[in-house]
Amino acid sequence: MAEVQNGSGAEEKASTVAFTAVKPWLVVDAPKASDAVQFYKTAFGAEELSRVMHPKRKADHEIPLVLSAELRIGSAIIVVSDLIDDSSATVKSAVTGGVICLETEDIEAALAQAVDAGATTEGEISEGEDACCRGRVGKVKDPYGNIWLICSPSKKCADVEA
Amino acid sequence: MAEVQNGSGAEEKASTVAFTAVKPWLVVDAPKASDAVQFYKTAFGAEELSRVMHPKRKADHEIPLVLSAELRIGSAIIVVSDLIDDSSATVKSAVTGGVICLETEDIEAALAQAVDAGATTEGEISEGEDACCRGRVGKVKDPYGNIWLICSPSKKCADVEA
Repeated sequence: MAEVQNGSGAEEKASTVAFTAVKPWLVVDAPKASDAVQFYKTAFGAEELSRVMHPKRKADHEIPLVLSAELRIGSAIIVVSDLIDDSSATVKSAVTGGVICLETEDIEAALAQAVDAGATTEGEISEGEDACCRGRVGKVKDPYGNIWLICSPSKKCADVEA
Repeated sequence: MAEVQNGSGAEEKASTVAFTAVKPWLVVDAPKASDAVQFYKTAFGAEELSRVMHPKRKADHEIPLVLSAELRIGSAIIVVSDLIDDSSATVKSAVTGGVICLETEDIEAALAQAVDAGATTEGEISEGEDACCRGRVGKVKDPYGNIWLICSPSKKCADVEA
């Protein structure tokens, strides 16, 4: 496999750090995080595990802001938060608009459920050619600027994750 | 738990779709995806599972572009791609700059390894208060505009993921 080395001189060291969880974090324009959480429940069957609100409601906030909410989709966890630029926010400078790939055996049902919840389709279902989505893949954009790829499970991925 | 209902009327339907994998997808400014993959190997011990290149090298591309590369960090998979705006790209309109939370027992070692690889620290290690990072949390920004939260495992998360 052709690889571009970055010449940092550090690439020969093996990582000595073990990571026990990897969670994508979606930052949405405040104060839409509450709505986004509800949307992900409806669109993707997400289960809300916990939510921490902003410690105080500022005068210019009509509704309380979400510091972070943890959602479970399948066996994975994602985090959703309002974009808050003060010292209480763990993530304060991120741009909004992420991309998450969801694998499912039933792409049509998943897309229909997401659109029914308010997502918009982006193009047609196609044959994916990339490393993540070698089978069929559809795309939706949620009302909060994030893109969701709905893919059939790739054999390679399934082998790895089994 | 206080919840804001969005009034769509659809929230009472249980999801009938099962999702078997959730993969955050990081889009970086072309042609930096190859460098980013190498960085994630060095910084986070990522293992490259597969890579698909852009089908043809355009005249104005000095190095080939990455349609997508799958990397394993711990037991999770992330996808990295160059931002490519043509029909071959699965993700072509995403903004760059994502946020991913990594849990580890050894935050100091993880931060040191990431910084040694070229990441920049964002603030000090602090006591997290949000739903994802209730223990200690440090932050780095990678050279490609993505933010990585390095957190101690939260008990609640560990219970869920066990």
